[in-house]
Amino acid sequence: MSSPPIITLTTDYGLTDPYVAALKAAVLRRAPGATLIDITHLVPRHDVLYGSICLERALASFGPGTIHLAVIDPGVGGRRRILVVQIRGAWIICPDNGLITWSWRQFGPGKAGELIWRPIGKTSQTFHGRDIMAPAAAMLANRKPLRKFARAIQDPILLNIHPARRPVRSGQIIHIDHFGNATTNIPASALSAKVSIRAGGKRLGLKQTYIDVPPGKPLALIGSSDLLEIAVREGSAAKKLSLRVGDKVFVD
Amino acid sequence: MSSPPIITLTTDYGLTDPYVAALKAAVLRRAPGATLIDITHLVPRHDVLYGSICLERALASFGPGTIHLAVIDPGVGGRRRILVVQIRGAWIICPDNGLITWSWRQFGPGKAGELIWRPIGKTSQTFHGRDIMAPAAAMLANRKPLRKFARAIQDPILLNIHPARRPVRSGQIIHIDHFGNATTNIPASALSAKVSIRAGGKRLGLKQTYIDVPPGKPLALIGSSDLLEIAVREGSAAKKLSLRVGDKVFVD
Amino acid sequence: MSSPPIITLTTDYGLTDPYVAALKAAVLRRAPGATLIDITHLVPRHDVLYGSICLERALASFGPGTIHLAVIDPGVGGRRRILVVQIRGAWIICPDNGLITWSWRQFGPGKAGELIWRPIGKTSQTFHGRDIMAPAAAMLANRKPLRKFARAIQDPILLNIHPARRPVRSGQIIHIDHFGNATTNIPASALSAKVSIRAGGKRLGLKQTYIDVPPGKPLALIGSSDLLEIAVREGSAAKKLSLRVGDKVFVD
Repeated sequence: MSSPPIITLTTDYGLTDPYVAALKAAVLRRAPGATLIDITHLVPRHDVLYGSICLERALASFGPGTIHLAVIDPGVGGRRRILVVQIRGAWIICPDNGLITWSWRQFGPGKAGELIWRPIGKTSQTFHGRDIMAPAAAMLANRKPLRKFARAIQDPILLNIHPARRPVRSGQIIHIDHFGNATTNIPASALSAKVSIRAGGKRLGLKQTYIDVPPGKPLALIGSSDLLEIAVREGSAAKKLSLRVGDKVFVD
Repeated sequence: MSSPPIITLTTDYGLTDPYVAALKAAVLRRAPGATLIDITHLVPRHDVLYGSICLERALASFGPGTIHLAVIDPGVGGRRRILVVQIRGAWIICPDNGLITWSWRQFGPGKAGELIWRPIGKTSQTFHGRDIMAPAAAMLANRKPLRKFARAIQDPILLNIHPARRPVRSGQIIHIDHFGNATTNIPASALSAKVSIRAGGKRLGLKQTYIDVPPGKPLALIGSSDLLEIAVREGSAAKKLSLRVGDKVFVD
Repeated sequence: MSSPPIITLTTDYGLTDPYVAALKAAVLRRAPGATLIDITHLVPRHDVLYGSICLERALASFGPGTIHLAVIDPGVGGRRRILVVQIRGAWIICPDNGLITWSWRQFGPGKAGELIWRPIGKTSQTFHGRDIMAPAAAMLANRKPLRKFARAIQDPILLNIHPARRPVRSGQIIHIDHFGNATTNIPASALSAKVSIRAGGKRLGLKQTYIDVPPGKPLALIGSSDLLEIAVREGSAAKKLSLRVGDKVFVD
């Protein structure tokens, strides 16, 4: 394979401080040719569910062989495990705190391992992304055999969210993007064209795209991740309909 | 040519969500060696004029052969065309909604085409950046002949903004950056050194650089895009002089 | 050496406008193979001390041969010098306004030069990052001998901040990150395990990591840059303890 390995990065480090760059340096020092792609570094601090949705989008977007490094890690320095998961022909490295959930639900089950490699010498107690997980991502990029640094486990921590199954009568909002579009756990494949949707106390028609309603009006549609989405044309559904993650959405 | 093709990205997708990464994945899956450069993803949502100014800066900064992908696309899923424009030895792919304007005015007219290629099978109705425009950018990167996927058109949509011409008596503010510097449509070449400028009800001397006035004081100068700019040293001209895009600026 | 040179970028240009991309274009036009890494572009405008801390983190993270370009430049267009500094096997290019300070204190003294190269023809008076410093970074990437474009100097401008030395009784806060963690100038090596710390009027135990205290509680710990840090678990120490850069921190 001639193209360099792609390593994606999903964190809650923010863009103001040099933490993301420290993560990249820790990868590039060990895997100089890697292509690094930022998924987002603006996951709300410690928001594991938010990070889980973004990580699944990374997995869905990039092909087999990609290495996905995700660090939303409120338990850093404690006893939480670090996961190395093979899923959909790609790799995910992340703390074992539920971050793997949405990737696992949509594309799994995967093959899960616990990272047992640790750096020789002193390691920070506050920045395992840089000191442990980034080096592990570089090892994968360098095709080091997994059994050298991880051992199989059967029980990664999974949050209690699931894709809705047919016949679907209701679902819930699992993500709100910065535009205020609300993604649900209801896949397009579980819906007929003729349904109507209730969310935020409103009945909404299932439309093809935003411009099927006037500006400022709410609608339901299949979003770019093939899930039912509640939106407002040129506006924020989250604000207009007072939607929050966890809210129920009904299908009639 | 040994260097990989450069593809620049200008969007209003924001940096919080994984949309920019999805765009990059769609390019890299088809053109693995491409160098991707973010121009900005913080164009205010649906602000075509703002995006148009940023896109022209991308065109001005990068050399011939560069591919510029710009997606500010309020009409996504509707009947608006998608443009493929050759201009200044580079390529621009963007929705046909006026986004091409400032590049066209400053460096054109270009050679305009309408993208006729569409992916086989299902396409999202909400994310043509990922599903149509990014693949088209990859085709250009892979040197696929244009006639295979676009047809010539003569009438790209252009907004009603123009560079001011000599003898210039007035112009208008076309862009305000996040520092509050206000860029006008008046090129340096249209000005003599001896002019004075009026903006926001103030008369301003034309200076060489910020430090030619005390901190907090307004000035006029030629900005880094060779256009007349209204600024405040270590402050915001937009706030201090209550400037807005579209405001008139006078040259005496 | 087969890997391409790494050039890091630290600026206060923000992420909304196309200024960072213009800097990258100016490098890539002259050094097409360079790997560009963003450290941060959200240094508060003209905050030289903040930039100095970020720049030192870049220097600490990346290996020998890296070229670090840092542009926080309130004096642009005036008579301030531009530095080219060799330090720790790497290069730093930045305005001579104190930005070099923390790198110099932690890893120096370095070998300092003044950039004497200037582009032929017209140069903007407002964007020396793009027009002078980025081309100089590309020259270093292309291994052009330093004596061709810089002359040795002995007196780079240094801010009055220093790492605390043993026996340390007090230090000061030199940086507050966007989480509200406050970094001091007190290195781990200057502390015994048994000390207690006073900051913001509170006495704090020196802990190993965040989870050694309950959520919402303040602590002192050695941060990821090996300096004493004041933090609040899952909160902001800056807010909770009303900390500001320059505040004293006591070691008992």
